[in-house]
Amino acid sequence: MLYFEDYEVGKKSSFGRYEVTREEVIDFARKYDPQPFHLDDEAAAKTHFGRLSASGWHTCAMTMAMLVENMQKQSSAGLGSPGLEQLQWKRPVYPGDTLRVESELIEKRRSQSRPEMGLTKARVQVFNQDDEVVMQSVNIGLIALRDPDAPETY
Amino acid sequence: MLYFEDYEVGKKSSFGRYEVTREEVIDFARKYDPQPFHLDDEAAAKTHFGRLSASGWHTCAMTMAMLVENMQKQSSAGLGSPGLEQLQWKRPVYPGDTLRVESELIEKRRSQSRPEMGLTKARVQVFNQDDEVVMQSVNIGLIALRDPDAPETY
Repeated sequence: MLYFEDYEVGKKSSFGRYEVTREEVIDFARKYDPQPFHLDDEAAAKTHFGRLSASGWHTCAMTMAMLVENMQKQSSAGLGSPGLEQLQWKRPVYPGDTLRVESELIEKRRSQSRPEMGLTKARVQVFNQDDEVVMQSVNIGLIALRDPDAPETY
Repeated sequence: MLYFEDYEVGKKSSFGRYEVTREEVIDFARKYDPQPFHLDDEAAAKTHFGRLSASGWHTCAMTMAMLVENMQKQSSAGLGSPGLEQLQWKRPVYPGDTLRVESELIEKRRSQSRPEMGLTKARVQVFNQDDEVVMQSVNIGLIALRDPDAPETY
């Protein structure tokens, strides 16, 4: 099990492989983001997207699937997240793209309000198959301490 | 049609009604965020969530559904979004909750790189049925100009 104490600032990870399908793009957009450029080729062709592209929130969801898979491979003691510091959709994500993630831990500190957990801050970049960044964000995570009674402040 | 020129800084809107179902919470989590506290009551009871709660990304998606519904009611000339400045998940969202949105336009400016569009910045708050904030964010939007050749800078 990977606890807060085990996280090292500066550590980089590269993981994930998510094949974006047309069916899933349209299914997600119908439910959550039914703007024409996420639903229909012809409508998308008239916009700066050029062709049918995934909802940015769908890209977030696909990225989370890769992050969780990686956390579970490492048996990370993750306890959810209080949020993000920023999130940028840099390029459209199209059906047929294959996404992957690179992340770097940029900060960690023990929670003051919940000393049994620590906060981690990671720079997350999502790339397509052409190694172009499609999304980047700074994600905050909550991780359980191995020793919740430790006096040390990280 | 509501164009960039029509957006007024300071304007507040209140809209949306999204009923969070257990089925949808589990379905989203299975696909995109399969952490135990989003899938299983017993596992969630052992965490600070207390009981089965929605993925934060699911809350984003449900919020987007309400934002798009509101944009489409207003026939807003929305062209997508370059991202968010921050996003905070403040409280868990549980099956049975009913969500709604309050938003306020806090800034607008014409795009320098794409003068046919403008950028809007909105503070978005999502409330549950007890009027507690469950999520808040600062969202950037791209909106088409009615007169893309106008010399004026907003």
